[in-house]
Amino acid sequence: MKFQLNSTDAKSSERAGIIHTAHGEIHTPIFMPVGTAGSVKAIHQRELEHDIHAEIILGNTYHLYLRPGIELLEKAGGLHKFNGWNHSILTDSGGYQVYSLGENRKITEEGVIFKSHIDGSKHTFTPENVMDIQRSIGADIIMAFDECTPYPCEHNYAKASMALTHRWLTRCIDRLTNTDPKYTYEQALFPIVQGSVYKELREQSAAFVASQNQSGNAIGGLSVGEPHEDMYAMTSLVCGILPSHKPRYLMGVGTPENILECIALGIDMFDCVMPTRNARNGMLFTTEGIINIRNEKWKDDLSPIDATLGGYASASHSKAYLRHLIISKEILGAQIASLHNLTFYLWLVKEARKQIIEGTFAFWKERMVKKVSSRL
Amino acid sequence: MKFQLNSTDAKSSERAGIIHTAHGEIHTPIFMPVGTAGSVKAIHQRELEHDIHAEIILGNTYHLYLRPGIELLEKAGGLHKFNGWNHSILTDSGGYQVYSLGENRKITEEGVIFKSHIDGSKHTFTPENVMDIQRSIGADIIMAFDECTPYPCEHNYAKASMALTHRWLTRCIDRLTNTDPKYTYEQALFPIVQGSVYKELREQSAAFVASQNQSGNAIGGLSVGEPHEDMYAMTSLVCGILPSHKPRYLMGVGTPENILECIALGIDMFDCVMPTRNARNGMLFTTEGIINIRNEKWKDDLSPIDATLGGYASASHSKAYLRHLIISKEILGAQIASLHNLTFYLWLVKEARKQIIEGTFAFWKERMVKKVSSRL
Repeated sequence: MKFQLNSTDAKSSERAGIIHTAHGEIHTPIFMPVGTAGSVKAIHQRELEHDIHAEIILGNTYHLYLRPGIELLEKAGGLHKFNGWNHSILTDSGGYQVYSLGENRKITEEGVIFKSHIDGSKHTFTPENVMDIQRSIGADIIMAFDECTPYPCEHNYAKASMALTHRWLTRCIDRLTNTDPKYTYEQALFPIVQGSVYKELREQSAAFVASQNQSGNAIGGLSVGEPHEDMYAMTSLVCGILPSHKPRYLMGVGTPENILECIALGIDMFDCVMPTRNARNGMLFTTEGIINIRNEKWKDDLSPIDATLGGYASASHSKAYLRHLIISKEILGAQIASLHNLTFYLWLVKEARKQIIEGTFAFWKERMVKKVSSRL
Repeated sequence: MKFQLNSTDAKSSERAGIIHTAHGEIHTPIFMPVGTAGSVKAIHQRELEHDIHAEIILGNTYHLYLRPGIELLEKAGGLHKFNGWNHSILTDSGGYQVYSLGENRKITEEGVIFKSHIDGSKHTFTPENVMDIQRSIGADIIMAFDECTPYPCEHNYAKASMALTHRWLTRCIDRLTNTDPKYTYEQALFPIVQGSVYKELREQSAAFVASQNQSGNAIGGLSVGEPHEDMYAMTSLVCGILPSHKPRYLMGVGTPENILECIALGIDMFDCVMPTRNARNGMLFTTEGIINIRNEKWKDDLSPIDATLGGYASASHSKAYLRHLIISKEILGAQIASLHNLTFYLWLVKEARKQIIEGTFAFWKERMVKKVSSRL
């Protein structure tokens, strides 16, 4: 994996770059649609490519490990071959899903014992087997196995958890060093900075992660309920410590506003279920602001969903038609809304990239944040 | 509406033709995907056009009347404008949905009083207002308001119901004669032959319907649970009475086998929820036979869903991937399976048309019925 910075500005932190993987180029800043179980919900793969213009999607190790299972993924020749997505894939490590399981998991030095949400069966994730699983999935970018702390989180717990995440990181790196990719291409590891909302823990974690000298670095444990100011403060702090010549990935973030603010802090990569999950509930992100399409006010609004954004879903269907589909629980409603929201998210980061390259990002961002966070 | 017969065979009943409406040509025999509430479930309109090659879709008067409602459809300029489907549309009359409501409706000479399945509100359908509603929806082909009898059905009830359907038909024709289309194009009425599985009632009804001299004719009240032999016998009988220079539409039929058999009896148009509803449950109709994709045997079958059929959904996704999506309840599973099944249904009728024109239909049908009805 190579990362090439196209544009940086000495006076500000936002950057535009290109990540090169065996499956193509990723123009940063980038948003990565979440393809939990090998499918971005309600979206055909060709739509990801031709309508949304995604360059990389996520897969979830936890979900893929449980279903369809590693054996089948290996037989298929990896996730790219299995789901037919020929561009880049990043897999998370399962750390976040295991964190979400609550009572149904036990964390030890060795790893995590957890119960499947599907059938209650018992499984163990360790730094080593999670690396093996991600080798089998065949992601271009592999995430280290970490513990994601909740918010709020006691200082003592956050500190101990961070230390555990660091010890696990060493084991992840050892494992990858001692194993080969299962397919014909290289896989890059991104370690994850933890430390909750504690400044000195974040500094310590960022320094440790930076010292591992991997191809890219990630920030985890944010966007778990903390105030936005904390998220921005921690992100800014960590971006100042992580090397600038490597991509920085802020995990699980966020709203259009969050993304723009964090691009300004030096983040290159984002992922979030929000554009697809909220789409299914009728929340639309548009170039003019946020729309709850279920509201009565859109009932007979026959104007396009988002004429400025353009594209198939957004320009050729009216708000009234989409509202009718969502209210009637038609699957096509989820399809159109998801297609629209992802098209918007990818448009937003592409536009941000253009503004960064033109040196007009800061000014544009101020205007844009107001627009995209307003409720219509 | 014009109907032009391209190919008939003096020794057999199957025919190939072209229906011309204000929204384009319909090559018969044709299958019409069901777009209940203004959307063919899990299918984008552009997929209907470019992948499935549909030439006409159905809308349900009952559903569209309740949601989004006639006022909005009129404001949009009709259903074509509302949902962005620019080819032909046929609307059923609500008779079948009202029949399905069971206890929640009351049939009188005047019409039907029924309760909405959405909110329990009370509504009345009469032959007159159902014609008005279909004027507002703007379908190219309007169905007469009829009573669909259940199976089994007492002879006395079937006879009285048929007579009521005939009286309602006269009222439908009167209403349409005395009103103009709401938009800029002509709307054709198809009367419906009823009579349950009683030969003399079907003969009587077919003769009455034929005497009304409308642009096309339909056969209702079949595929409601009767043995296939009865369906074929009634269809054959009625096709012999309905004029041969007008299209014949067999409502709600059916399996690929049913469709091939009924093409052989002289039917030109079909509709059924089966390809989409069954798709969502994992039943696939393929060129090799019927697949229940949930079966363990497809678990690691990495071959295409249907390579012979081709097309995006069928050729570029494996059985194992589709199975994984359906088992995991991913929306994309419903999307791919629906896209595949409808592509297959439209391929089947197109292939039938080709065989009719080439004079090889009977031979081809015998082989094909065996194939498409076998379980893989």
